[in-house]
Amino acid sequence: MILLGSTGSIGVNTLSLVKKFALHVEVLTAGKNIELLNKQIEMFSPKYVCVRDIEDVQKVNHNRVYHGSEGIVEILNIAKSDLVINALVGFAGLAPSVETQRLGKRLALANKESLVVAGNLLDTAKIIPIDSEHFGLKYLLNGKKVASMVITASGGSFRDTPIDRLSSMSVDEALNHPNWSMGRKITIDSATMTNKIFELLEAKWLYGCENLDAIIETKSIIHAFVNFIDGSTTAHLANADMKLPISFALKGEVEEEILPHVNLLEVGNLEFKKIEEDRYPAWEIREDILKNPQLGVVLNAANEVSVERFLNNEINILDIAKINKRAYKYFGDVKPKSLADIFEIDKEVRKYLNKGDL
Amino acid sequence: MILLGSTGSIGVNTLSLVKKFALHVEVLTAGKNIELLNKQIEMFSPKYVCVRDIEDVQKVNHNRVYHGSEGIVEILNIAKSDLVINALVGFAGLAPSVETQRLGKRLALANKESLVVAGNLLDTAKIIPIDSEHFGLKYLLNGKKVASMVITASGGSFRDTPIDRLSSMSVDEALNHPNWSMGRKITIDSATMTNKIFELLEAKWLYGCENLDAIIETKSIIHAFVNFIDGSTTAHLANADMKLPISFALKGEVEEEILPHVNLLEVGNLEFKKIEEDRYPAWEIREDILKNPQLGVVLNAANEVSVERFLNNEINILDIAKINKRAYKYFGDVKPKSLADIFEIDKEVRKYLNKGDL
Repeated sequence: MILLGSTGSIGVNTLSLVKKFALHVEVLTAGKNIELLNKQIEMFSPKYVCVRDIEDVQKVNHNRVYHGSEGIVEILNIAKSDLVINALVGFAGLAPSVETQRLGKRLALANKESLVVAGNLLDTAKIIPIDSEHFGLKYLLNGKKVASMVITASGGSFRDTPIDRLSSMSVDEALNHPNWSMGRKITIDSATMTNKIFELLEAKWLYGCENLDAIIETKSIIHAFVNFIDGSTTAHLANADMKLPISFALKGEVEEEILPHVNLLEVGNLEFKKIEEDRYPAWEIREDILKNPQLGVVLNAANEVSVERFLNNEINILDIAKINKRAYKYFGDVKPKSLADIFEIDKEVRKYLNKGDL
Repeated sequence: MILLGSTGSIGVNTLSLVKKFALHVEVLTAGKNIELLNKQIEMFSPKYVCVRDIEDVQKVNHNRVYHGSEGIVEILNIAKSDLVINALVGFAGLAPSVETQRLGKRLALANKESLVVAGNLLDTAKIIPIDSEHFGLKYLLNGKKVASMVITASGGSFRDTPIDRLSSMSVDEALNHPNWSMGRKITIDSATMTNKIFELLEAKWLYGCENLDAIIETKSIIHAFVNFIDGSTTAHLANADMKLPISFALKGEVEEEILPHVNLLEVGNLEFKKIEEDRYPAWEIREDILKNPQLGVVLNAANEVSVERFLNNEINILDIAKINKRAYKYFGDVKPKSLADIFEIDKEVRKYLNKGDL
């Protein structure tokens, strides 16, 4: 098994399941958390290791340490494992996804940016989704004719914040997610609802469904709904824990208990709310981008820039959508056809936003 | 198509769908509502008709009118249709169910008593369930390993009545169901939760699942949950309308809209409650009867007697469970092995309760 991004939230969960299922780890890759990587190396004895930066290579307790995104691609080519768990964060996950499929390996994808920016370059029918919503949707598909799919949002850290106070919310407050413990980037994307736009794009690529929407379910108990043509709706419920989709990615089918079932008597009630555009201005472009999914690369690049600025205390939470929309309009006519195009547009968007005074 | 019980709630819904799907009706049978039956005869031109009582035969505008349960069995033997919708009420539905399967016809079952009293005499794998809960369960089965099944209850007419006022509730109040418009008998069975015990027995026979439970979902939006071994739970949601399961019974698969989907933003919230034994004393025997499903015939016979008495203002709503439990204990060691045994026990239970001073 090849694990890209072993020290993040998905990576750590994956390794706990690797241990449970007594699987073999051939490759571990990490970013800057070398201390945790060294512990993982000691426990799982991978054959190859990769870190992001060359200066960290010598800190790693291993004799075959690669570095950078070229390092990951090189390891993918020499490693024998068939299964790649791509838990990299952001745009950096794209090239390894494309290379994984080019090599005929199975791609289990937690790196949603791969699909968001380049769904048209991937064999989406073969992707194993590691995401509660898309795992839930897949679980619900039963061969019957689908009318529409609905995924749920928690509403993020500012769901109940008075709207006029949103612009003064701090980074720490934004990182305090009510239901999920996740990485910093995705927690901010959850607070702005940009994460849910990404997930709608993912669902479009994965399941070819044109009729997609999201609603807020405040407890993150229900992750996905499928509306079938006859009038039936089915829902996928599970406690908020990524071990469930990861287990299916690792094992194909799972015939043992991974999580305890949701106890609905303890839950007591579930609440559904509309995603309001005044609270989540990012949400305004959902319909347009679902019709123009090739603009995913623009939204993603802009969002990586704007979220970084928010995390650096340079802008407030509402500015993220403003910056994203400015780039989205400016680059509204791009039509990437290759990985090279995608890289070029990604670079252009970042350049455009960095020269401005936003 | 053969429709047994055409003038009841399920029968009327079935005929509206027969019209929509332009299907052919070969047989209609009814109880005492001859006026409606005559209208149905005019509209659907069945080849054979049956009424319950001989004295009603001449009131029917048709030249081939049979009567009684023997009449139904006779028609089943001469009719050519492959599909039988059994929407008869109560114990009377059993013999036609058995005969339908003996003749190799397909049995779509709204008459839950057939399974409750004689599940062991039916080829349960071939039954098409016409019941929101069992339809929902079937819809959710996906080949993955099931840990348990949970069906929902509305809680019935007295869900929110103060418990100390239950014994003074009138028949009219009992018949005022919050979510469903159904026949009188099932509306009372819903108020006492006996209906949900019957449905657990049905689920046991239909799906062979040993781990069964029910919870209250106050809006009757969610009808069934399946808990899978991995920790996933799936739910079936639909607006409260029997046209959905009936359509599947009539068509096999349905690739058109029968009902509009549940609008969760309009629903706003869902509430889950435990089924409390002080409010629903009938609920106390659920575990015992699931282990001893052969006692279904006893519970059903006792319940038909006690509900009739309640509807005649002879007893109060809480007395129903008392009478049922008295019979359930007295006949606790019966072991019916044939249809003849079932008929005999049914008769004995009624005799026992009618000679007493309950």
